[in-house]
Amino acid sequence: MNLKRKDLLTLEELSGEEIIQILDTAASFKEVVQRPVKKVPALRGKTVVNLFFEPSTRTRTSFELAAKRLSADVVNFTASASSLVKGESLLDTVRNIQAMNVQTIIMRHACSGAVNLVAKNIQASVVNAGDGKHEHPTQGLLDMFTIRETKGEFKNLTVTLVGDIIHSRVARSNIHGLLKMGAKVRIVGPATLLPKTFARLGVEVHYRLEDAIADADVINILRIQLERQDGQCFPSAREYANLYGVNARRLKLAKPDVLIMHPGPMNRGVEISPRVADGPNSVILDQVTNGVAVRMAVLYLLTGGESDENSD
Amino acid sequence: MNLKRKDLLTLEELSGEEIIQILDTAASFKEVVQRPVKKVPALRGKTVVNLFFEPSTRTRTSFELAAKRLSADVVNFTASASSLVKGESLLDTVRNIQAMNVQTIIMRHACSGAVNLVAKNIQASVVNAGDGKHEHPTQGLLDMFTIRETKGEFKNLTVTLVGDIIHSRVARSNIHGLLKMGAKVRIVGPATLLPKTFARLGVEVHYRLEDAIADADVINILRIQLERQDGQCFPSAREYANLYGVNARRLKLAKPDVLIMHPGPMNRGVEISPRVADGPNSVILDQVTNGVAVRMAVLYLLTGGESDENSD
Amino acid sequence: MNLKRKDLLTLEELSGEEIIQILDTAASFKEVVQRPVKKVPALRGKTVVNLFFEPSTRTRTSFELAAKRLSADVVNFTASASSLVKGESLLDTVRNIQAMNVQTIIMRHACSGAVNLVAKNIQASVVNAGDGKHEHPTQGLLDMFTIRETKGEFKNLTVTLVGDIIHSRVARSNIHGLLKMGAKVRIVGPATLLPKTFARLGVEVHYRLEDAIADADVINILRIQLERQDGQCFPSAREYANLYGVNARRLKLAKPDVLIMHPGPMNRGVEISPRVADGPNSVILDQVTNGVAVRMAVLYLLTGGESDENSD
Repeated sequence: MNLKRKDLLTLEELSGEEIIQILDTAASFKEVVQRPVKKVPALRGKTVVNLFFEPSTRTRTSFELAAKRLSADVVNFTASASSLVKGESLLDTVRNIQAMNVQTIIMRHACSGAVNLVAKNIQASVVNAGDGKHEHPTQGLLDMFTIRETKGEFKNLTVTLVGDIIHSRVARSNIHGLLKMGAKVRIVGPATLLPKTFARLGVEVHYRLEDAIADADVINILRIQLERQDGQCFPSAREYANLYGVNARRLKLAKPDVLIMHPGPMNRGVEISPRVADGPNSVILDQVTNGVAVRMAVLYLLTGGESDENSD
Repeated sequence: MNLKRKDLLTLEELSGEEIIQILDTAASFKEVVQRPVKKVPALRGKTVVNLFFEPSTRTRTSFELAAKRLSADVVNFTASASSLVKGESLLDTVRNIQAMNVQTIIMRHACSGAVNLVAKNIQASVVNAGDGKHEHPTQGLLDMFTIRETKGEFKNLTVTLVGDIIHSRVARSNIHGLLKMGAKVRIVGPATLLPKTFARLGVEVHYRLEDAIADADVINILRIQLERQDGQCFPSAREYANLYGVNARRLKLAKPDVLIMHPGPMNRGVEISPRVADGPNSVILDQVTNGVAVRMAVLYLLTGGESDENSD
Repeated sequence: MNLKRKDLLTLEELSGEEIIQILDTAASFKEVVQRPVKKVPALRGKTVVNLFFEPSTRTRTSFELAAKRLSADVVNFTASASSLVKGESLLDTVRNIQAMNVQTIIMRHACSGAVNLVAKNIQASVVNAGDGKHEHPTQGLLDMFTIRETKGEFKNLTVTLVGDIIHSRVARSNIHGLLKMGAKVRIVGPATLLPKTFARLGVEVHYRLEDAIADADVINILRIQLERQDGQCFPSAREYANLYGVNARRLKLAKPDVLIMHPGPMNRGVEISPRVADGPNSVILDQVTNGVAVRMAVLYLLTGGESDENSD
């Protein structure tokens, strides 16, 4: 009943069956969090550590709530306050955490290889909460959960990812997961922000937003990191909005029941117009709600199996 | 049995009946926290988020303990570490938190209108933990609880608020609550720190401390924010202590059983002398104890009603 | 069954019987944390506050997990965010925390006297989590637990402490505890880092590492604080490693079953070589595991007695 793996590091490595198993489990947890008492004892007496080496409140809070609703004990380990500033190696830090009888480590790190390195060297389960520009698998899964909730199936769907694909771990996780499930994936953005090699994965690469969203079933709009604007790859926010901002007028090119998604935080008026963000096609807040259910499923499937669910 | 409102934003908006209901409920929770097991399952499976945009340990900890003693899950959302630094709007941040199936948001913000704006735009309950110079209703309620615990009633009591009234949300909440319950309220301080318009609310305005505390039943001494001293409104700490510092000699002007209150943190030797702070009339630490009970009552009355209290 | 004291401030003040009682209780808690459900209801409904005036993740997390596994409510009170920056006195801050019906305060402070001052002035139990260069009693106890777990007894054991003894609260706690239990204690390091007065306590003082570890049963290697290197007391990291670094070659001088200990975080290649840190004699990660069990025992024995252990 559990996943037959210790860690969740990428969607690239998951099979279609595993993805379905996670989404199905998340569906039953979504029902749990809508009850008055949003709690099950599945991970009672287990310990989950949030180990974030990059600042994050949104993702950390989502994981923290997921763990607490499974009745786990949760500890937030802030990297800046930690032994790392005293020169300890990453592996020593993680081995120390594990030695406190911790079952699961949720880790975010600015370097793409770091989470994988840790997972290989400890017995505790590791969940990748974002590693550099590599993957952010629970974001990919919650996006897929949100799509499936409305559309039912992935086959024959056209999903368009808009924006800064090259720096986006969200994009990579979505692409791997969606292609695996039979969806058609398009990416679109300024040429400097599109990795040409993605065509080899089976992705359609576009440079005009209008082409990319024509008849799309889902538009997933990535956040533009305005702090990178002064670099040479980025147009100005205004120019970006003109060319790639998704607004009500452009939305008409997509299917009438197109889903509008965004991983947040949004720059309203840049990559997405307020009318689109708050409009009837938007499932942006559903993504957030579903994120907790998906993370409950991941924590449960990685570590929940041995506990007695009837003991509270 | 619940309050017939979603939010607690001000004491100005509460009726006398609502205030009494909160104080009565707090009295029963005060009994709970004095048991060996200081815990009831009233909010089990519910989630409370501490959303503090101004640093606070004291108030945040009091709310956190209140929520935990009601068995809620509590998440601390530190604004500096949050998406707000990435340019997300306040409402987007709060809607995101709510989307994680959060029932109650406890919010502190430097702007007077911010908490109200949020409350109007989300379904979750919002508790104002201090908004700018506007109100800090749970502080007002815990002050009233502490007064009632000793004095029994508010009618015919004379309560004197001393100090920087103009910048104080604590003063505003006390004034609204106490007048509503029939107490007589005096304010006193340097002319630059007294809002003259308060006379219209029915408050007696004084400029000499001796006049203001003569025959008082309660003296609530506000904190002087020494960091503002170099501004033009503030005398030096020494001058302030000379004119408005409450010391043992001046205390004799009040009634013998006068209550000495202070919302903390105290500047000993400035607005209050150590002998008064630690003397037999001081109920300053009782205020802190009562704060947890009052906050349990507020959280319970806003969100507790639907849960099954017998399920643990 | 409880300890007959309110606080745990030093190992100097504990009797041999009390040390044994703590270690025996820790042994039973170690068994608890190895079960699937690592939790007992011993401190349910009690509140433990982590009050750390020096940054620490490792020790704070260990105490936090210990308290949570006893089912206590835990609040982290970060001193920098607190009222202390607003000029409140240390005692006022601590009395405020206590007034929230807190049973136990775990406190770390840069000044050697601070924890003792607080303990004398409040009714809550205080656990010293490290005060200046004075003591770190739970580290001393977890080191002793780890030694006893393998060696059975302290009598006739030779324990060598290596490094910066003069600045080390870990060394002081180990010395007091081990001497009390009948072990032979040696200290070794550069002359500038050894307090000569320790000879009076009954400790053997060495300057050559080889002499100090000859036939040792335990080598406890203290962390070199590289940030102090530019001071006059410290050799360079390289020179230190040459003279006092514990490596595989030097290890052969000790007994074949010598235990290698380090309180962490390690500077690999300075005070300890990677081969020794990860070798078969190393019990460094066991120390971390045992730390949680020892802290559970301390919290339980100081405050656990009155609660009904059968009520969950």
